[in-house]
Amino acid sequence: MKQTGATKERCLLLVGMGMIGGSVLHAAMEARSANKIIGFDADLSAMREAFSLGLTENNSGTLEELAPQASLIVLAAPPLAMASVFEALGALDLADDVVISDVASVKGPVLEACKAHAPKYLNRFLPAHPIAGSEKSGLAASRLGLFKAKKLILTPHAGVEESASQRVTEFWQGLECQLASLECELHDELLAATSHLPHVLAYVLVDSLLRHPQTDRLFEFAAGGFQDISRTASSDPTMWHDIFMSNKSAVLDALTQFESRLSVFRRLVENGDSQELHKMLQGAKDGRDDYLAKYRS
Amino acid sequence: MKQTGATKERCLLLVGMGMIGGSVLHAAMEARSANKIIGFDADLSAMREAFSLGLTENNSGTLEELAPQASLIVLAAPPLAMASVFEALGALDLADDVVISDVASVKGPVLEACKAHAPKYLNRFLPAHPIAGSEKSGLAASRLGLFKAKKLILTPHAGVEESASQRVTEFWQGLECQLASLECELHDELLAATSHLPHVLAYVLVDSLLRHPQTDRLFEFAAGGFQDISRTASSDPTMWHDIFMSNKSAVLDALTQFESRLSVFRRLVENGDSQELHKMLQGAKDGRDDYLAKYRS
Repeated sequence: MKQTGATKERCLLLVGMGMIGGSVLHAAMEARSANKIIGFDADLSAMREAFSLGLTENNSGTLEELAPQASLIVLAAPPLAMASVFEALGALDLADDVVISDVASVKGPVLEACKAHAPKYLNRFLPAHPIAGSEKSGLAASRLGLFKAKKLILTPHAGVEESASQRVTEFWQGLECQLASLECELHDELLAATSHLPHVLAYVLVDSLLRHPQTDRLFEFAAGGFQDISRTASSDPTMWHDIFMSNKSAVLDALTQFESRLSVFRRLVENGDSQELHKMLQGAKDGRDDYLAKYRS
Repeated sequence: MKQTGATKERCLLLVGMGMIGGSVLHAAMEARSANKIIGFDADLSAMREAFSLGLTENNSGTLEELAPQASLIVLAAPPLAMASVFEALGALDLADDVVISDVASVKGPVLEACKAHAPKYLNRFLPAHPIAGSEKSGLAASRLGLFKAKKLILTPHAGVEESASQRVTEFWQGLECQLASLECELHDELLAATSHLPHVLAYVLVDSLLRHPQTDRLFEFAAGGFQDISRTASSDPTMWHDIFMSNKSAVLDALTQFESRLSVFRRLVENGDSQELHKMLQGAKDGRDDYLAKYRS
């Protein structure tokens, strides 16, 4: 429900109608975040699908036609597509009161894209990352309630105007997200470790099993643990390609740290060092149990 | 329900009452697999707990006292405890009609333990591995229905008598497992890749994050994907220590294959090779989606 006293936007434009973008439209319609809610996707079939699902008022239109109508633009394109979206926006005369946000899993590269391609709107842009999703992709997987009571990390920067920051914050509050705030670089470092690295492991695990001479028998006898640990390998490859490539340095740092501990594990097993191996496993179990108790109960 | 015509055992002895052992007791009681159902655990408090839960007829007793009563002995001790259990059994005069099975996640080492420590019962031993479980451990986590409609892999060997093999098979059928059969070494190789390696990754991922200078903030902003991928790191460290150590060579082989693909991933990201990276991710997604469609629908 919309918070009392929050600004109702004149027109919300959502750019990039995949699973997350579609879910923003669902939530914004329910919360009546704007008098007019429209969606844009470079793929015309996604626009028609969104229109038929009642998620947008338009079934066609270019970004150049739609963007100037908006008081709030939310970008939900894959990270590496952000540069061209900002390039398009930077060439337009958007409304005087326009504010911009996004939903990307990487924040530094998106902020850089705005600086490089639409610097005149940097003061109107407050980046955001809702910590919600699934391994499913595409508009058909979008759903109402995806963001409800989920964390949403804002990454404020020195260049953003207070009034713009407030309007974007109110929009996300209206979708009932739990707002948090992190410095941009720290966001990318933390998420590289807890989200991007786990996706790497899931993708590479499946890739590695597919190269086994008896892949089919492997999968035939795989247990529930494999289904869970590999779940995120079913995520959208384009999205994750973009995340890995655009957050390269933080992802590779997290990977280096992981590889160094993996080689410790290997050495303990090779050497039959029971005591240290048990200590490593017990420490990980305790750490994971603590995490659950503290943040997931 | 017990299959018509199946032998009802005179007395079932379950050795090692943790999560899996307790669940075997639950299922055997429901299926009325034996006239008498008793449990043994080296930990006396586990025996009292099982007795108070109604899972065993005895609340004390040594293995030496209990084992000679049994017509069917099912071993559910951690893999590296199997040698001492077989040693104890090998020193006893078990019933003439005794048959033996187990539930360990590794099969070669358990068969070797029987050969080394209780060779006189090798012809009565048919190893088994129910593909069911959870990250929870201990008797309190055991439950009725854990094995129902789940795969159970038998690993027959040349030394086992046909009649013993048949009785063990009937017992597991009575618990409504879906029986399959694999050669022992192949079992350990396949499970190293789909179960043991994923457990390594989960444990080492959590271990690696615990060494991050801001572990608490990492966990605070971790998403559902992390919760899933790390789930198996909450598993019993003793059990998994034993599995990694006793299936060392297959686990390290699977790890080597994984590491080799991980270094391919790293190279693609470092080099910005978009096309090959996308291909790798797409291939993994397709493989995982195929696995789900084929084996999990």
